Amino acid sequence: MKAEIISIGTELLLGEITDTNASYLASKLPELGIDLLWVTQVGDNLGRLKECLERAWNRSDLVLTTGGLGPTEDDLTREAIAEMTGEKLSVDPDLERGLREFFSFRSFKMPECNIKQATLIPSAQAIPNPRGTAPGWWVEREGRLLIAMPGPPSEMQRMWEKEISGRLRVRLGHEIILSRTIKTFGFAESAVDEMVSPFLSSTNPTLAVYAKPDGIHLRLTAKAQSKEEAEEMIAQMESDIRSLLGESIWGCDDETLEGVVGSLLSEKGLTLATMESCTGGLLANTITDVPGSSSYFKGGLVAYTNGAKISYGVDAALLAQHGAISPEVAGDMAEAARHRLGADIGVSITGVAGPTQVEGKPVGTAHIAIDDGREKRLIFGIYPPLRQEVKRRATYHALFELRKVLLSYSNTPSETVKF
Amino acid sequence: MKAEIISIGTELLLGEITDTNASYLASKLPELGIDLLWVTQVGDNLGRLKECLERAWNRSDLVLTTGGLGPTEDDLTREAIAEMTGEKLSVDPDLERGLREFFSFRSFKMPECNIKQATLIPSAQAIPNPRGTAPGWWVEREGRLLIAMPGPPSEMQRMWEKEISGRLRVRLGHEIILSRTIKTFGFAESAVDEMVSPFLSSTNPTLAVYAKPDGIHLRLTAKAQSKEEAEEMIAQMESDIRSLLGESIWGCDDETLEGVVGSLLSEKGLTLATMESCTGGLLANTITDVPGSSSYFKGGLVAYTNGAKISYGVDAALLAQHGAISPEVAGDMAEAARHRLGADIGVSITGVAGPTQVEGKPVGTAHIAIDDGREKRLIFGIYPPLRQEVKRRATYHALFELRKVLLSYSNTPSETVKF
Repeated sequence: MKAEIISIGTELLLGEITDTNASYLASKLPELGIDLLWVTQVGDNLGRLKECLERAWNRSDLVLTTGGLGPTEDDLTREAIAEMTGEKLSVDPDLERGLREFFSFRSFKMPECNIKQATLIPSAQAIPNPRGTAPGWWVEREGRLLIAMPGPPSEMQRMWEKEISGRLRVRLGHEIILSRTIKTFGFAESAVDEMVSPFLSSTNPTLAVYAKPDGIHLRLTAKAQSKEEAEEMIAQMESDIRSLLGESIWGCDDETLEGVVGSLLSEKGLTLATMESCTGGLLANTITDVPGSSSYFKGGLVAYTNGAKISYGVDAALLAQHGAISPEVAGDMAEAARHRLGADIGVSITGVAGPTQVEGKPVGTAHIAIDDGREKRLIFGIYPPLRQEVKRRATYHALFELRKVLLSYSNTPSETVKF
Repeated sequence: MKAEIISIGTELLLGEITDTNASYLASKLPELGIDLLWVTQVGDNLGRLKECLERAWNRSDLVLTTGGLGPTEDDLTREAIAEMTGEKLSVDPDLERGLREFFSFRSFKMPECNIKQATLIPSAQAIPNPRGTAPGWWVEREGRLLIAMPGPPSEMQRMWEKEISGRLRVRLGHEIILSRTIKTFGFAESAVDEMVSPFLSSTNPTLAVYAKPDGIHLRLTAKAQSKEEAEEMIAQMESDIRSLLGESIWGCDDETLEGVVGSLLSEKGLTLATMESCTGGLLANTITDVPGSSSYFKGGLVAYTNGAKISYGVDAALLAQHGAISPEVAGDMAEAARHRLGADIGVSITGVAGPTQVEGKPVGTAHIAIDDGREKRLIFGIYPPLRQEVKRRATYHALFELRKVLLSYSNTPSETVKF
C-alpha cells in the first residue's frame, strides 16, 4: 500500500514549528507494512491545499493529513476535501450535540464558528477526539482511503494510536510486524551501541538504538506470518540483550520511570516525599504525572534557598560545613522530607542547574539521596550543563535509583520482576 | 518570489529523522521577502525525485533542495537535476582537485565513488562546503533558480549562512517580511477568532490565530519595501488588536509567562513562594525553568494530602469546613506559603487533576489564590478534564493572574508597560 502525508498549516512554511507529526506518522507506518512515498507541507490556502489533495488522491492508496481542522477561517481541510470529492458539507447532529456539550461542561457558550467542526461529507465518518473539539475524518471512496487528523501532536497521536492504527491493521490483514522497546538508564548512547553491536546488522528482527530524555531505548522489530512467531523472534533477541545490559534496564514499551516507581510503591504499600533544589519541582511534577499518585505521594518541598532548606528541617550546621551541593546535605534533605511529611521514603536532589556555578561546583553536577529509614543511599550525577537538561536528567536519575531501592524490598530477584 | 523546498532522503520517509532542514530554511526565507508555498519530502528514488523537481521548477521561482549529494548510489540529486534540465554531467577539474586534497589532507585515499561529488552540469556553479565533501549547486536557467544543498544540518546551515543568503539578498533587491506574535490568556481560540475577525481577511499585514499551551497567540506579518514601513504596518494593526483584547494580552514574540513574571519580580524586588496540590510541582518547575529564578523564588510546597497541607501551616478547621478544593483553602495555602518561606507573595493552586473527582468536584476544576499581604486574590478555573492539561492550564492561569497582581504594584498603567 502506497501512502502519502500532507501536513497543513502556514506556521510550518514560516518555520515556526517543525513538522514532527510527519516524522511520528512515518515511524508508525512500517509496522503496518505501509510504504510512505511522499510528505508535503502546504499552507492554509484553499487552492493549493486542494491541488495537493488531488495529486495525493490520484497517486496514493492512503492519504494522511494533519492540521487544518480547527474552528477558524484559516482551517480549510474539510472544505478542501469536500471540493476535491465534489461532495457537500453538512452539519452532523450527533457531532453538533457532542460539541455543544463540550462547551457547556466548561460553562462556555459555543462560538458559532465552532459549528464547522461538526460537519461531514457523505463519504466521511467522524473519528473521535476526546482531547479537543476537532474530530478526524475517515474518508473511503473509489477504493482509496483518506484520513484527516488534527494538528496538535497530543490530539493527533492519541487518535492514531487509539482510533486509526488498529482499524488500518484489520483492513490490511497479512504480515505481522511486532515491536518491543527496552528502556535503559545510565549508559551513553554510544556505549549501548557498542555493547549491542553484534545485533545491529540483524535484518529480522531489527534492532535500533535511540537516545531519549529518560535514557537509551532499544527497539526490536520482527516481521512474521503470525503473532506467535514474531513474539518468539523478539523474545530470543530480548533475552540476549538483557544479559548484556542487565541492571540498566528499567522498563519496556509504554512504561515510564515515574509509572514503574509508582506501581512499586503501591504494590509494597510505601509512601514517598521529596525535597529538591536544582530540579525546582520537576521531580514532584514528574511523580504526580501518574494518575493515582496521590495514594503514595505525600508531598514535595522545593527548596531554592538555604533558608528554605533549614525551615524544612535540614541541619544548618551541615549546610555551613559542607555547602548545599554535597552528599551530606542531600542525605539530610531526604531524611527531612521523610520526617516532615510522614512518608516511608524520602528522595532528594541538590545540584547546579545553571546558568552559573554554585559554591565552586560546576553546572551539571548533582547529589541525589534516598532515605528509607534503614539506610541512606547517596548518588552523584554529572549531566550536560544545560538548565533543562540538568533538571530532566537528575530527575530521571533519582527515579531510576529509587526503583532499585524499591526492588530491594522484595525477595523476588530483579530479573524476574514483571515489567 | 515563490519558493519551494524539496527534502530528499528515504530516512525522512521512514521517520528515522525529522525534517529540521525544512523548518530551518522556512524560518530564514521571510526576512528575504521570499514566500514559501510548498515543502515536499521524497525518498532516494530517481523517478519520483525527478517528477518532484519538474513540478517545483514549473511552479516556483526558487527551488531549494537538501540531501542526496553524498557519494553513494543512493545519492541521486545531481542525476535528477541533470535529467530534468536535459544537461550532461561532467567532472569539473577544480572540484576534483579540491576533493582529492580533502582526502589526502586526512591521509585517506579517496574512494572512487566520491568522484560523483566533483561533477557539474553547464548551468550549475559549485557552492563551497568546507564542512564536507559535497559542494552545493547553484543552477540558473530560464530566469529560475535552483539551489541544491547537502543534507547534514551543520553543512547545510553553514552553506546557507555564508554562501547563499547574502547572494540571494543581492539578487532579490529587498522586500522585507516582518512578524510579531501577541500572546493572550483567558479566551478560547474561537472567541479570539471572533473578536479579531475583521482583521483575518487582511492580506498585508496578515493575521493568524494559534492555540498554544500558554494561551492563544496572534501572529501579525507585514511585507514592505523597508523595515520601517513593515514595522509601521504591524504597529497599526497591533494597536487595534490590543484595544480589542486588552488585559488578556500578556506578552510578545519570544516571551514566556514564567519569564515575564520573573522579570516583574526582579524589577520590583519581590520574592515568591508557592503551595500547590493538583499541579503537583508543575508551578514551581515552570517558575524555575527561568535562569536566575533563584534570586526571587524562595521555594515551593507540593501538598498532595490534607496532612501535608496542615503540616505546611494550612488551617485544619478550614480544610474540614470547606474541603481542600475551595477558595477558602486556596487563600490559606497562599498565605501559609508566603509565611512559611518568608516571601513577599504566595501563590497557591488546589484542584482536581483527575482521573476521578474529589470531594464531589469534577476533574478540571481548580482554585488559585495570590496573597501579597495586602489582599488575597481568589481565582476559579475550569480546564479540559485531562490530567496533564489541567496541570498545565492551571499553572499558566496562576502565572497569568500573578502577572496582573505584579503590574498593580507599579504606577505605570499596564498598556505602557514594556514587554
